[in-house]
Amino acid sequence: MGYKYQLTLNNLLRYVNYVFSDVPIVYRPPHGISYRSTYGEEYRRILKLADGLRKLGIEPGDRVASLDWNTIYHWDLYWAVPGIGAALHTVNVRLAPEDIAYTINQAGDKMLIYHRDFAPLVEKLKPALKQVKYYVQISDGQGSVGKDPDIEDVIKSGEERELPELSEDQVATVLYTSGTTGRPKGAYFTHRQLVLHTLSVALAIVGFRGLSRGDCAEVSGEPCATLYLVPMFHVHAWGLPWVYSVVGWKQVLPGRFDYGHILRLIVEEKVKAMAGVPTILYMLVTHPDLNKYISEIKRLAPIYVVGGAALPKELAKKASEAGFVPRSGYGMTETAPVVSLGFLRPTEKWPEDPERLYDLITMTGLPNPLSEFAVFDESDKPVPRDCRTAGELALRAPWITPEYIGDPEKTRTAWRNGWFHTGDAAVWCPDGRIKIVDRLKDVIKSGGEWISSLQLEDLIMTHPAVGIAAVVGLPHEKWGERPVAFIVPKPNAAVTPEDITSHLLKFVEAGKIPKWWLPDKVVIVNDLPMTGTGKIDKKALREKYRDLLRQSI
Amino acid sequence: MGYKYQLTLNNLLRYVNYVFSDVPIVYRPPHGISYRSTYGEEYRRILKLADGLRKLGIEPGDRVASLDWNTIYHWDLYWAVPGIGAALHTVNVRLAPEDIAYTINQAGDKMLIYHRDFAPLVEKLKPALKQVKYYVQISDGQGSVGKDPDIEDVIKSGEERELPELSEDQVATVLYTSGTTGRPKGAYFTHRQLVLHTLSVALAIVGFRGLSRGDCAEVSGEPCATLYLVPMFHVHAWGLPWVYSVVGWKQVLPGRFDYGHILRLIVEEKVKAMAGVPTILYMLVTHPDLNKYISEIKRLAPIYVVGGAALPKELAKKASEAGFVPRSGYGMTETAPVVSLGFLRPTEKWPEDPERLYDLITMTGLPNPLSEFAVFDESDKPVPRDCRTAGELALRAPWITPEYIGDPEKTRTAWRNGWFHTGDAAVWCPDGRIKIVDRLKDVIKSGGEWISSLQLEDLIMTHPAVGIAAVVGLPHEKWGERPVAFIVPKPNAAVTPEDITSHLLKFVEAGKIPKWWLPDKVVIVNDLPMTGTGKIDKKALREKYRDLLRQSI
Repeated sequence: MGYKYQLTLNNLLRYVNYVFSDVPIVYRPPHGISYRSTYGEEYRRILKLADGLRKLGIEPGDRVASLDWNTIYHWDLYWAVPGIGAALHTVNVRLAPEDIAYTINQAGDKMLIYHRDFAPLVEKLKPALKQVKYYVQISDGQGSVGKDPDIEDVIKSGEERELPELSEDQVATVLYTSGTTGRPKGAYFTHRQLVLHTLSVALAIVGFRGLSRGDCAEVSGEPCATLYLVPMFHVHAWGLPWVYSVVGWKQVLPGRFDYGHILRLIVEEKVKAMAGVPTILYMLVTHPDLNKYISEIKRLAPIYVVGGAALPKELAKKASEAGFVPRSGYGMTETAPVVSLGFLRPTEKWPEDPERLYDLITMTGLPNPLSEFAVFDESDKPVPRDCRTAGELALRAPWITPEYIGDPEKTRTAWRNGWFHTGDAAVWCPDGRIKIVDRLKDVIKSGGEWISSLQLEDLIMTHPAVGIAAVVGLPHEKWGERPVAFIVPKPNAAVTPEDITSHLLKFVEAGKIPKWWLPDKVVIVNDLPMTGTGKIDKKALREKYRDLLRQSI
Repeated sequence: MGYKYQLTLNNLLRYVNYVFSDVPIVYRPPHGISYRSTYGEEYRRILKLADGLRKLGIEPGDRVASLDWNTIYHWDLYWAVPGIGAALHTVNVRLAPEDIAYTINQAGDKMLIYHRDFAPLVEKLKPALKQVKYYVQISDGQGSVGKDPDIEDVIKSGEERELPELSEDQVATVLYTSGTTGRPKGAYFTHRQLVLHTLSVALAIVGFRGLSRGDCAEVSGEPCATLYLVPMFHVHAWGLPWVYSVVGWKQVLPGRFDYGHILRLIVEEKVKAMAGVPTILYMLVTHPDLNKYISEIKRLAPIYVVGGAALPKELAKKASEAGFVPRSGYGMTETAPVVSLGFLRPTEKWPEDPERLYDLITMTGLPNPLSEFAVFDESDKPVPRDCRTAGELALRAPWITPEYIGDPEKTRTAWRNGWFHTGDAAVWCPDGRIKIVDRLKDVIKSGGEWISSLQLEDLIMTHPAVGIAAVVGLPHEKWGERPVAFIVPKPNAAVTPEDITSHLLKFVEAGKIPKWWLPDKVVIVNDLPMTGTGKIDKKALREKYRDLLRQSI
């Protein structure tokens, strides 16, 4: 019997080093460092880092936590920790300190590698972290805080030893969902899952219509550049550090996000592809420095893939005006995350009517190679593909987490009949695309029918004075639930509940929404509670305004 | 535990049907049929064919032989037979009848599905095929020959039942190498191997520089089209039926190869990507009808990936002049087959000097995602990457056959130290590319040094009057071996041994080859013995001219 090839990140990295060793990778955080490296140089640093971690005491099967921004160190850790058979637990820095300690303890992390910005937090947490034996600091060229060893010293201590041959079923990463209900839930991913996710996403982004920028190297004579604005402490930065490596793109790491600095990087590094949640795109396109760079951004026309939350049409238009090419994607922590992207079939045309174009762009796209969509009703039967009947979105793909750590009950609920149930309410369209209408738990059930809080929010946000909108369901004796809208006006703008209602009435008259969808109450507020991943925390919102809601009808 | 996703062709096909169901697939053989279908329609035909085969008695684990051209039926069989858990054995129609019977018997094929063109052959073979229980004919719209059932009836007999869930380790195909020594050797491939081969090759051809034509759908408003000229009875047609499906390209199947007809198809179907052995490219670029189509071919500029044998520089130039964009690839039956393609790194430039450009184009390229090159000397140590020191090319990739069927000895020789040894002599260049200098067994060892027969042939073929050249080694008392060249002149051209020697002397003077490489003898002949795959059969050549060679020095 010959060699049984294992689908490991180690083999992927060896490939990247063989073919793309001289492709640049750039680390330019806002604090002034400009580190220009190549995949080949980073490969050697990764080997040394891996060996250094081993020498410190990390063994196969161990778990290593990271608390870091989008630094070159974090990028190296994405390869080095799984590379020695340990699992990287990228801790979500936006969680409450208590939840951070909870996830580190539940994962059983043996080492914590943290950026100096988190030194005060780590000092506070240390007494609660019983299993963490080793602390390593990423001083990031700014001098150490405290006495923990610096990651540069770990790298220096290591030798350039080849990474070991691992089993593809070895766990490579551990992640926690920032659930709005209860404690964060753990999920894990094997090497095999991450390699397959990488190949699938890579194929879509370099080869499929409307995403591909494969021409840029040919035209410019230098490698295409990407700058992903997904924090590396969120679900593998959507896998993009691995994806862009296997296609040999220049990667630009911006450190901690500073939007003015990022605009400069887009232009200076000639960025052609980006990705991030809608909020970050919003920050870029409303930034005071945008005008300085807009003509150059229009020339570059970077693709900007939005995920993590629905892309509002207004934001998509604004982004287009600023020179970005907005596209959508869909995924969640449990799905590694990317299962679909907003590409166009070879047989389709972009709609000429701008409204229909933006409708298409803001949908969640088509499944990436090897992933599959279905929408099921409450009795687990597929709903009709009529773009109207809502059900629960279910998925198949080679990279969905096989289980929730220590939660067999939740695992059983999610995995039924060979499908992973997302908890997202969606409609299924004749062309195979889906549209998320709500989180199932955020769906408003009124008179036995569903009201999509997302669609109401989308329409409310087309009002020029509205910054953010959130619609939640309120218990109602007769109807079961009724919608209530919370509005944060734009800076220096004013809006009244009556404005919103008459704004929405126009959509009722145009037949876009039924009249009974109109919120029973519109509340103007200064801000909204957010989750650790920058989404509106509807659970907290409902709790915060519980009394108000009780009185309101 | 959730769903454990299996990497099967069935899951791949379901994906293709979901996303690319309306992409066309066209079958236009020379005998006048023009069948225009879509992936969606073929999906339903495949389900029916699979069910029909099951009803006839094919069970999981069975083997089904095919004897067919590049027909739509063969394309359907590529999915339907593995789809029910059986293995497709694509019989090489170019083998001697005795070897055809040998491979069918050794594979234990239970069914033989043959094109009507092979009906006389099959009738002759039937008594020798002890294990074949069922015969099915592909009458291909031309009426049945004999009494075996027609494949269209098998399709009609089946229902559109979903394909079963299979294990990814199920054997999907069985192939035989057309060895020039001894009997053909069997190799097999699992679903997992074929899916990974598909993803890797797809990523390179749609995303990597110099291969990607991903723009064509965007520009033309219709799907990109491919017409692969690799017979589907040769090593999975290089996997291209699966590869182009997963990227949603229009596939054009030309039936039995007729070069004038193929030139017409390129133009009429707007073909942007092709593939095949050098001989077929040569047939196209020297075809009398070329002039009729050349201006349109130049506009289309189809990529033409050459594999199966080295691409001679002269042919690459001729192909470029005819409007094709020649590229190289490397692979062999045992490797599924594609492990490398002639793409350019993002950091490289195409050489401006045409000679250097064609040197690069005619090399075997860089490894595709997840595959890996090494060149080892006789003590299994890597040779220096100096582009000069020859050794044996070794490979790693997830899709290399794990063993030779029933030949543990050959398996052990090929698989050593975790590397598959190809039997090809190659030099390893600093940029990671390799250049095949010979089959190990064709290498000429003279005075302890290697002479590359391929390089000598390449240089001889730059002579304007030379059609084909083959150089083999002759035993020599003093030197061990010495080279002898066999020359087939072009039609209506004349050449003498002295012409060849003085032609080669120019390369000696230019420092391209050492003087001691000059053949001791040049023999002008009318034709050369060929293998079943259209390569020069050097073993037969040596035997045929053994006496001549004995006398010659």
